[in-house]
Amino acid sequence: MFRDAWIITQGPERRVVRGDARVDEGRFTSVGGRARTEGATIVEADGLALVPGFINTHTHVAMTLLRGLVDDRDLAGFLEVLFQVDARRTEADVEAGAAAGVAEMLLSGTTSYLDLYYFEDAIARASERLGIRSFLGWAVVDPELTTQKGAPLENARAFIERWKGRGRVTPLVAPQGVYVCNKETWLGARALADAAGTLCHFHLSETRKEVHEHEARTGRRPVVWLDEIGFLGPRNIAAHGVWLTRREIEILAARTVAVAHCPNSNLKLATGGVSPVVELRAAGVTVGLGTDSAASNNALSMLREMHTAGLLQKHHLWDAAALPAQTLLDMATIEGAKALGREKDLGSIEVGKLADAVLVRLDHPTMLPARAEAIVGHIAYSASEEAIDSVYVGGECMVRGRTLVREPWSDVRRAAEQAAGPLWESK
Amino acid sequence: MFRDAWIITQGPERRVVRGDARVDEGRFTSVGGRARTEGATIVEADGLALVPGFINTHTHVAMTLLRGLVDDRDLAGFLEVLFQVDARRTEADVEAGAAAGVAEMLLSGTTSYLDLYYFEDAIARASERLGIRSFLGWAVVDPELTTQKGAPLENARAFIERWKGRGRVTPLVAPQGVYVCNKETWLGARALADAAGTLCHFHLSETRKEVHEHEARTGRRPVVWLDEIGFLGPRNIAAHGVWLTRREIEILAARTVAVAHCPNSNLKLATGGVSPVVELRAAGVTVGLGTDSAASNNALSMLREMHTAGLLQKHHLWDAAALPAQTLLDMATIEGAKALGREKDLGSIEVGKLADAVLVRLDHPTMLPARAEAIVGHIAYSASEEAIDSVYVGGECMVRGRTLVREPWSDVRRAAEQAAGPLWESK
Repeated sequence: MFRDAWIITQGPERRVVRGDARVDEGRFTSVGGRARTEGATIVEADGLALVPGFINTHTHVAMTLLRGLVDDRDLAGFLEVLFQVDARRTEADVEAGAAAGVAEMLLSGTTSYLDLYYFEDAIARASERLGIRSFLGWAVVDPELTTQKGAPLENARAFIERWKGRGRVTPLVAPQGVYVCNKETWLGARALADAAGTLCHFHLSETRKEVHEHEARTGRRPVVWLDEIGFLGPRNIAAHGVWLTRREIEILAARTVAVAHCPNSNLKLATGGVSPVVELRAAGVTVGLGTDSAASNNALSMLREMHTAGLLQKHHLWDAAALPAQTLLDMATIEGAKALGREKDLGSIEVGKLADAVLVRLDHPTMLPARAEAIVGHIAYSASEEAIDSVYVGGECMVRGRTLVREPWSDVRRAAEQAAGPLWESK
Repeated sequence: MFRDAWIITQGPERRVVRGDARVDEGRFTSVGGRARTEGATIVEADGLALVPGFINTHTHVAMTLLRGLVDDRDLAGFLEVLFQVDARRTEADVEAGAAAGVAEMLLSGTTSYLDLYYFEDAIARASERLGIRSFLGWAVVDPELTTQKGAPLENARAFIERWKGRGRVTPLVAPQGVYVCNKETWLGARALADAAGTLCHFHLSETRKEVHEHEARTGRRPVVWLDEIGFLGPRNIAAHGVWLTRREIEILAARTVAVAHCPNSNLKLATGGVSPVVELRAAGVTVGLGTDSAASNNALSMLREMHTAGLLQKHHLWDAAALPAQTLLDMATIEGAKALGREKDLGSIEVGKLADAVLVRLDHPTMLPARAEAIVGHIAYSASEEAIDSVYVGGECMVRGRTLVREPWSDVRRAAEQAAGPLWESK
């Protein structure tokens, strides 16, 4: 149990309370006030804020090895290099890269993440080794376009079968996007997700190019087309959602499709548009935050994602009140949980929920002044990753005092640097 | 001397070299290769990058106590609260707040900063205590508008006299902006700067409101008007410079006025415009980076300022190559030094320059992969403040292993929290 913390509950009333939070069998059994101490391991949390672990709703964690490989290029130029490097990757270097990225995420307070890539078994292993909760989407493209061995849809199905119900892994299917998936591929992914009861994660309308090319090819904007072919529905999480019309926003809302907003990546790749986050939310669409990969972000920090998401909407709308601090923290926690269809288990500190939480140092320079009414604002706008002291997943400590618990960072790092070498040298 | 570092020289050829950097009497006496070791204290820098200390060209460091006090408000709403709180500040709370801000800056790699505020003696003392290099502008407004005791211009003159040539402090005069300074005040500041041989720092065209009101009052846009009255000239540093016309850019270039670009603050306050940084640079204007205060940023980290500056221009211009990583690091180092008129002493690691430098951990998660060709990009786009291991000012170590050398952070923090109390409670 956590004793005497400032608890940022993120419950329905968004209460900030001082007191204890008890955990039994991985779930919160009391929040606020004084908890009974029998049988509990006590973590003294005076001077710390207990915050729900962050939920990163879009990344490609294994690409952490490619951070900095193609900076200052737009998405087309970026993908030109990336696809070549991607095609040469091995399952071993994917695992090494994923472990480095998972470590970076844990150390910046992320306890759950949603990935889109291939070799997802390697990513599952890296996630399980370090203890993060992972939602892993096996990338699906048209069979004739893939560099995967075997048919992507079949690979996804097998991956889901191998990992369903194992540890903290939730496997799922992830059609890459309209530019590499035809109608059959989309509907195959949909059928697989329905049959296996999984989520379906995909890229959507990130660039003008993909939207305009799709419109030229089909006569429909991507969301309209995806709806007409019968793909859209609940348990769908669309990454980016930048270039959306009013009508497309209404369709996403009607079909309960969630959006993973990735502002740092969108800005760095100069996608030009701004995801209509305020309009999406007003229409009732659940919007989470995602870092995208370290190759286009270039970090994997949800603290930075909150900050940039806030700055971008304020700037774009000429409205300093757009996406206020509380909303940004919501997007990084409870809204992310909703996007994953796991709001009963994740995203807030409430009795019955999984104890995925972060202890934030209130004595860090970027948390000053450490006043209760300022904690949410500091987390959204100023906190450095260094202020994240400890990280718990299902009540189990994965980071303690900025140190990974399960494996030494030096080991994770050494393997990642070794794996990065050949990829960089073959560029 | 620093032994066996990756040295990001930021010299004219922007070389990145592996080797030693020797310091004698506060200045670099050799850079790269093997240095002689006689009489040197050796800092083992294997696994570290030696980078010029960052130069923050615009802040109000004492406002660190007000971080989070007025989030999610535009500049008008922000100033409404801030001016009231400012008017109640004491010299003691200014010193406590400045010390906290200076500590935050040192811990994020800043070795020089340019401030605009009043009670600058207190800020000078805080800066000298913690060892940072400070350029301190005493704020000047029209006598009938000030909350200062005595006439602002006379206060500025006396401040400059008291601190000229003392320690690492460079005093200067700082007219607040066209919205609170009439012609007489601007020319008084100019005359004082000329007579005392100091810099002159001021706010310029941050919001549409101030530009349009000034134009309505005078028939001239601010830069045109400041030029016509004879204010503009070398050793001028204008903060923000957001709402500038092509003609104003040309005037700034012709008069050798430097600009301190503050992207995080501009975005957060929803100033709406985007400083024409690419156009300013193309016209020959020196552009540095500034954090503005923690009340509008909300951090004081030049790492974040580089990142946001890059993202904003790429986004705004639909050009992922705009402000590439090397240019961002330039703005945070050598261009900042030029803005301060100190490029002979500061901003790069070259023989003869002051040893203001930062050791960055290449084994930090946000610096992975730690390849020589990626270091500049990682600093601009991904490095966490936590990767800043040690900080040197004039060859003297001010931060070692993330720990302030001169004073314990716990003392600095306690004083700042105590001083923040009355300000927050009187809000």
